[in-house]
Amino acid sequence: MPNIIAVDAMGGDHAPKAIVQGAALAVAELKVQILLVGRQDEIEKELAEANAPSGAISILHAADVIDNNEAPTFAIRRKKESSLIKGLNAVKEGQASAFVSAGSTGAILAASTLIIGRAEGIERPALGVLLPNRKGFTFLVDCGANVDCKPTYLAQFAQMGSTYMNSTMGIKNPKVGLVNIGVEQEKGNALVKEAYGLIQTRAEQTGLNFIGNVEAREIPLGAVDVAVCDAFIGNIILKYTEGLAKGLMGIIKDELMADPISKTGALLAKGAFKRVKKNFDYEAVGGAPFLGLKNPVIKAHGSSGATAICSAIRQSVLFMANQT
Amino acid sequence: MPNIIAVDAMGGDHAPKAIVQGAALAVAELKVQILLVGRQDEIEKELAEANAPSGAISILHAADVIDNNEAPTFAIRRKKESSLIKGLNAVKEGQASAFVSAGSTGAILAASTLIIGRAEGIERPALGVLLPNRKGFTFLVDCGANVDCKPTYLAQFAQMGSTYMNSTMGIKNPKVGLVNIGVEQEKGNALVKEAYGLIQTRAEQTGLNFIGNVEAREIPLGAVDVAVCDAFIGNIILKYTEGLAKGLMGIIKDELMADPISKTGALLAKGAFKRVKKNFDYEAVGGAPFLGLKNPVIKAHGSSGATAICSAIRQSVLFMANQT
Repeated sequence: MPNIIAVDAMGGDHAPKAIVQGAALAVAELKVQILLVGRQDEIEKELAEANAPSGAISILHAADVIDNNEAPTFAIRRKKESSLIKGLNAVKEGQASAFVSAGSTGAILAASTLIIGRAEGIERPALGVLLPNRKGFTFLVDCGANVDCKPTYLAQFAQMGSTYMNSTMGIKNPKVGLVNIGVEQEKGNALVKEAYGLIQTRAEQTGLNFIGNVEAREIPLGAVDVAVCDAFIGNIILKYTEGLAKGLMGIIKDELMADPISKTGALLAKGAFKRVKKNFDYEAVGGAPFLGLKNPVIKAHGSSGATAICSAIRQSVLFMANQT
Repeated sequence: MPNIIAVDAMGGDHAPKAIVQGAALAVAELKVQILLVGRQDEIEKELAEANAPSGAISILHAADVIDNNEAPTFAIRRKKESSLIKGLNAVKEGQASAFVSAGSTGAILAASTLIIGRAEGIERPALGVLLPNRKGFTFLVDCGANVDCKPTYLAQFAQMGSTYMNSTMGIKNPKVGLVNIGVEQEKGNALVKEAYGLIQTRAEQTGLNFIGNVEAREIPLGAVDVAVCDAFIGNIILKYTEGLAKGLMGIIKDELMADPISKTGALLAKGAFKRVKKNFDYEAVGGAPFLGLKNPVIKAHGSSGATAICSAIRQSVLFMANQT
């Protein structure tokens, strides 16, 4: 079977235009077939505008759309004709091998778990995100699925994160750290104290490269390839990164504009600041994978443009090719 | 009774020299008397070198020192002759009104709770820290005392944080937010969901200015004056701020050095970068207060120099003057 990626044409702030354009970019770049799921007439209109190569893109009509404001479990029970549910069913039934959506994280998680199902040995699927660090990327797991975790979940996140970084991202023997408030084994809250032992046991059994606790301050410096935490912590780290980078860049801007010499310097250094910004560009990174499902499911950023959608599709192809 | 501040002369990386020098700065600047607690001979030697004004500084001899590597509860039981225990006893017995130490956070917390005792209606003392934001400071409570919290603790942190920002820092009607992964009331883990209702009830009863949940990304932008969370989250935010600022400044430096024009720009903008760095200078902010004790206790940064110790003493004077 060729690689067919089901793509939710209706999810995200700029759907369906950006999604269809992103799919067109992806088929031009990658040897991949795409099944766009959503309202047929709207998709056809956008396809005509996007000048997509014919043959590589097909459409699966879905009349309904689940939006971000709906309660996930309620929405997926009621909206059987939504692009999310129909797209995931296409994967379940073998019409496609992976699914990409820029829609509601909660709805994608709930529907994927229900329809595609969990991989063997996994209690809870988790969302991983690649955070830029000083040397490359840290894979932060979980950052969006499980806000209340049991220690066993964290041990599974450690394993899934390591496998993803190794197989999909090509990092050999990735360093895995448990996010904690100190490096000593006895540090932390009840959850991480128990998780530590479980991950250590797993490391002895499977060769997982567990380096122990990692303090939050070491993450941006690139101390680990995989940072393991519950989704409450993960989401706070993710959002805080965004806010702090913005806040810090704001402070820098204010100070650069505060005296004429610095102002001149800032003008000259414009190129450097552009490159710094690129480091934090999620469009190039692509989507965030849900780990622990039977098939690859990628969550693209809600405000994805065409480039970000194309990156997410690329990510799903890599994920798929290397899933064991 | 005049203001007498007991200062742990033996706590911190640069004790006793930096502590004694900081005390000398404080008595010169503030109308305050200081009781230096620690090894008499070492303190006398440093006092002679520091050229401290005579009369305002006295010494309480303590032969022992508790260091950072000792288990707090064990150390405070065994080392009755330590500067920490003797200093806190001086406060308990009325010889001093407040206590400042750059020693082990865990030991200070455990010993303060035991010796000075909790204020009425407080189940757990908490550590607050002033984090620089885009507009000024956010008071982050708890960031170092309680890694496993009950919802009632968080409600008390909200109240104590608000009182501190109002009375000690002079912020009228401070905005209090509960750190969460979304702004809607139903968001979050079990702990914050329950805490939300408790803080809201308290707001109705006491006039606390509770603005609801605050997302981590809004904290560096100055959305709230008080950010309430458990110490696991608080410590991660605190340490992550340090790491991310360092990581980001590193990336900026690399990019500025990557081409000759940017490099020239960076040279011209040197003044601006110095001012940015000053924004993150903990030496000027002073110490972190323990809230919810019967007397003010201030934790100074472990690597405090004389200026930071002086700032922490200033902080304790403000705290003391405004404690209700």
